Amino acid sequence: MKLFLPAIHVLGYGLLTLAGLMAAPALLSLVIQSGNTRAFVLPITVSLVSALIILWYCRRRADDSALQPRQMFLVTVLVWVVIPVYGSLPFLLMDNGLSVTDAVFETVSGMTTTGSTVITGLDQLSHDVLIWRSCLQWFGGIGIITLAVAVLPFLRVGGMRLFRTESSEWSDRGRLRAHGLLKRILLTYCILTIVCAAVYLALGMDPFNAINHAMTSISTGGYSTSDASFGQFKELSLIWAATFSMIAGGIPFGIYVHALHERNVKVFSDTQIKTFLSIIFLTALVLSLVIEQENRDDSWWQKFSHAAFNVASVITTTGYASVDYSLWGEFAILVFFFITFVGGCSGSTSGGVKIFRLQLSLMLIRDQVLRAIHPKVVLRRQYNGHPVNDEVYASLIAFLFLLALSWVMISLLMALSGLDMLTSLSGAATALMNVGPGLGSTIGPAGTFQSIPDFAKWVLCVGMILGRLEFMAVLVILSRRYWVN
Amino acid sequence: MKLFLPAIHVLGYGLLTLAGLMAAPALLSLVIQSGNTRAFVLPITVSLVSALIILWYCRRRADDSALQPRQMFLVTVLVWVVIPVYGSLPFLLMDNGLSVTDAVFETVSGMTTTGSTVITGLDQLSHDVLIWRSCLQWFGGIGIITLAVAVLPFLRVGGMRLFRTESSEWSDRGRLRAHGLLKRILLTYCILTIVCAAVYLALGMDPFNAINHAMTSISTGGYSTSDASFGQFKELSLIWAATFSMIAGGIPFGIYVHALHERNVKVFSDTQIKTFLSIIFLTALVLSLVIEQENRDDSWWQKFSHAAFNVASVITTTGYASVDYSLWGEFAILVFFFITFVGGCSGSTSGGVKIFRLQLSLMLIRDQVLRAIHPKVVLRRQYNGHPVNDEVYASLIAFLFLLALSWVMISLLMALSGLDMLTSLSGAATALMNVGPGLGSTIGPAGTFQSIPDFAKWVLCVGMILGRLEFMAVLVILSRRYWVN
Repeated sequence: MKLFLPAIHVLGYGLLTLAGLMAAPALLSLVIQSGNTRAFVLPITVSLVSALIILWYCRRRADDSALQPRQMFLVTVLVWVVIPVYGSLPFLLMDNGLSVTDAVFETVSGMTTTGSTVITGLDQLSHDVLIWRSCLQWFGGIGIITLAVAVLPFLRVGGMRLFRTESSEWSDRGRLRAHGLLKRILLTYCILTIVCAAVYLALGMDPFNAINHAMTSISTGGYSTSDASFGQFKELSLIWAATFSMIAGGIPFGIYVHALHERNVKVFSDTQIKTFLSIIFLTALVLSLVIEQENRDDSWWQKFSHAAFNVASVITTTGYASVDYSLWGEFAILVFFFITFVGGCSGSTSGGVKIFRLQLSLMLIRDQVLRAIHPKVVLRRQYNGHPVNDEVYASLIAFLFLLALSWVMISLLMALSGLDMLTSLSGAATALMNVGPGLGSTIGPAGTFQSIPDFAKWVLCVGMILGRLEFMAVLVILSRRYWVN
Repeated sequence: MKLFLPAIHVLGYGLLTLAGLMAAPALLSLVIQSGNTRAFVLPITVSLVSALIILWYCRRRADDSALQPRQMFLVTVLVWVVIPVYGSLPFLLMDNGLSVTDAVFETVSGMTTTGSTVITGLDQLSHDVLIWRSCLQWFGGIGIITLAVAVLPFLRVGGMRLFRTESSEWSDRGRLRAHGLLKRILLTYCILTIVCAAVYLALGMDPFNAINHAMTSISTGGYSTSDASFGQFKELSLIWAATFSMIAGGIPFGIYVHALHERNVKVFSDTQIKTFLSIIFLTALVLSLVIEQENRDDSWWQKFSHAAFNVASVITTTGYASVDYSLWGEFAILVFFFITFVGGCSGSTSGGVKIFRLQLSLMLIRDQVLRAIHPKVVLRRQYNGHPVNDEVYASLIAFLFLLALSWVMISLLMALSGLDMLTSLSGAATALMNVGPGLGSTIGPAGTFQSIPDFAKWVLCVGMILGRLEFMAVLVILSRRYWVN
């Protein structure tokens, strides 16, 4: 019970927020008279009642100022498993409601900001449901930032301990000093979303699309309002606006706060950001040259723009598509397959392996080469000014190996359910890395996850949550030792 | 020069051995009057002259009793790059000789015991050339064992330091104490080959095939004497004999010596061997059940036998095929794709990631989970009785990351040369892991590497050597620092 109480307490607040969030589509459905009002009001009631019961039950018992790392694991997993169940209710109850599997898949994909969808006919879908999908991703983005700033650095997960700075330290009594930082980061998140919407609006998007796409760009989610995804907008100015918005969502949010606080943009010359931008630029450049050879209709600039957009979309793990890039040839497909794993920066809303882990691995290789040549060399390992100790490397290798293991298992289960190799491999990768589209004719950038077997959908749900929580938390909760005192 | 001298000295001995080895096909060509005698005598002369010039030049200058780790890197890379060039001469000079690209590819594939071939019409090929292909693999096997026992444990390569036992220690003056151990291991290698040939003979293979297949089974090489690979033999007894021979080649050779010395078979209950056998058994079992559903003609035992054979062939990185397993369905193809990476045990002739690295990674994950739950726990990391320190983990992660990086680069280069995604991905994997066949219609178990572009062949040659030397040695040689004193 000592383990469960704080977890349930946090869950209560989460459900309360969810209910508040659902008010937006509920209001919209009233205004546009879509007939979906019941589909939102009922879930609001259920979430609200659940939240109030929990908070009433916990009112004196819980003492969340003393949240221990061990409890944080349970909080994390419970929140990311239970809230999507509540969040899926509108999809079940709406006009032509989805099946339970599809509703849960769509919600998990939304809240993990993956962006894989099982809905075709988005263009005909009621606006209130569309905005609910965007809200899920935007809310998921908040969850991820909180996870990255206030939870993971305190757990031994995938080297995130590197980002435990003094300004986000837990005090002896367990109170989160990061509270102030987190608040400022979430404010930045809201401001960025508003700025993004304003830019979209200024460049010619209608208000509804501007709001939706701003919410799913900054959260690097990738849900769109059309089956054509971002391909519904043909203007290159919008393509570039979205490219920069997705990149903005893939940058550590702490950096924005830092830049505002210091009134200095120099903080953006962080090594992680530089590498992140270079990878996107170089990959897009190479691809634009490859497309050049295959298709002579468009100008180079047009090709580069679309290459940059789709590369940024996959690397930031957003998952929009402006065109069906699976028609760009085998080399391009392979590039998109590999960059599915790259991911954005730490402390952003993006998923993937993340740039800092790639950099740490390269650093380690350089160290090993140096040591091979000069066995007695003393290595001073630093990353962005933080010392990199052996524990960081241990959690890094655990992360990479768990990723590989999960990828193998999930691909095999997908293939067992009858899917072909490319769909299985790319589907598992896109779920674990929270990207969105896979490869192949079914789940590729021009397709959806609708037609894959229910079993595969549940497997992918597990994959999306596993990847979002960076594997370790789920594994810890599943270990027998966790429950033995 | 201080760096080059020992490398050249060892190369001289290597060329001398190569010349001696070429005597076998040369004699055979004389006996069967194939007309290829010149194709062997000329290379023998060239190798012999080169060797004698080198050894004469080094006779007083070289002092290989003082071989330092730094020099070992150069020795290793130079030997594995230069000797294949000499070894490819017979393929160039024989009747209907191969092109330079094909000859080098066939030799590198042979000496790294990969077993990918560019020759079709093996059944019509002259016996002397066939035996030369087998000799290359058998000789390559010796090279690999030497590398694993006498070189890699002294370099910081991929956690191999774990296997630096007292019995294979270099003395202060640099003399290899492992000399005695290595000699006994090579003797075991010869004995195993003879036993294997005898078993093949007893089970009905003709002497020529028995010798060839014994040489390429124990070396986990995989060259066969027919385009049908091992599929030319239909008897299940031979299938099983080959399965066990390949497994024998995938077990640490030091264990055989140990078992003989202690007169105790208990040493085989080593944790690495147990896991190795379990993986093969379980994978074969699962596959046999999957094939069961697709094909109702054969008995379950027949299916299990072929599953076991082909799984053992890929996991031990031999690369024989008894049937075209790419017809077993998408799940089976995916399984074969993933097990390409597994590999055999350390100190065997097999390639791949190797079992001990997988076990170390699993151990690390267990440790990380434990630490997450009890942050102050003191971990006692041991593997097979050897302490596992952070340096072992550092070299492990460097190995895995270099593998991933090489895989990405080589696949992309293959795709750039116009190959499809499955061929590129599986071709790069099979080269790096020294397995042999890839997947897809071109390079799959029923195909050859003949039709792929020359550029892709050279890329794969680099891949095979990279993988065989476990990446680090090549990288060290290529680093600028290596050459600066």
